[in-house]
Amino acid sequence: MSPEQVQDVIARTRFNDDGLVPAIAQQWDSREVLMMAWMDEAALRETLETGRGIYFSRSRGARWAKGDTSGHVQQVREVRLDCDGDTVLLLVDQTGAACHTGDRTCFDADVVVVAP
Amino acid sequence: MSPEQVQDVIARTRFNDDGLVPAIAQQWDSREVLMMAWMDEAALRETLETGRGIYFSRSRGARWAKGDTSGHVQQVREVRLDCDGDTVLLLVDQTGAACHTGDRTCFDADVVVVAP
Repeated sequence: MSPEQVQDVIARTRFNDDGLVPAIAQQWDSREVLMMAWMDEAALRETLETGRGIYFSRSRGARWAKGDTSGHVQQVREVRLDCDGDTVLLLVDQTGAACHTGDRTCFDADVVVVAP
Repeated sequence: MSPEQVQDVIARTRFNDDGLVPAIAQQWDSREVLMMAWMDEAALRETLETGRGIYFSRSRGARWAKGDTSGHVQQVREVRLDCDGDTVLLLVDQTGAACHTGDRTCFDADVVVVAP
């Protein structure tokens, strides 16, 4: 992706007052929703430039390159902005577990059936 | 769902400083990510009690019963909390378009291919 294309995406993204945008990661083929995390502009830029899922850790207040410790990296295939540009959807290929608990997704452990 | 079960889910949910939690709506069978919106405690409670997708509109500062105007209601089948309880995933059956633009999902219009 060219620097101009990267800049265009960033210009269309509406970051919140903290300079962050929520990013949903979805496994591209199975369509599982893997996790939801946050990106600042630098994280979105690095994701677009490198094709790897990079986030901003709100608890640590710092860049979070997913998989640096665990090896559970995300190869990003598509980045989608929603209709008002304030949410990012990433179609990724997730290596191993997306969740720090070891579960495949962060949404595996607490399932409430409302209407089966 | 019993009042006790509803209260248990609410007690496990970590609302942010504004009293809100992000809620991702996913079509239960196709697994499309339809939209991301926000819920306050009352919206989550009503969603659990009624099985219908109810949100909190940040722009209007008020309850938002999706589909009341458009007819594009969401029948909720599952509510999932993520590993730290600060994001909700709804598995829904979406009537018609999820997006106010008329698109099926809010993520249909702005797709950036990173690595095909």
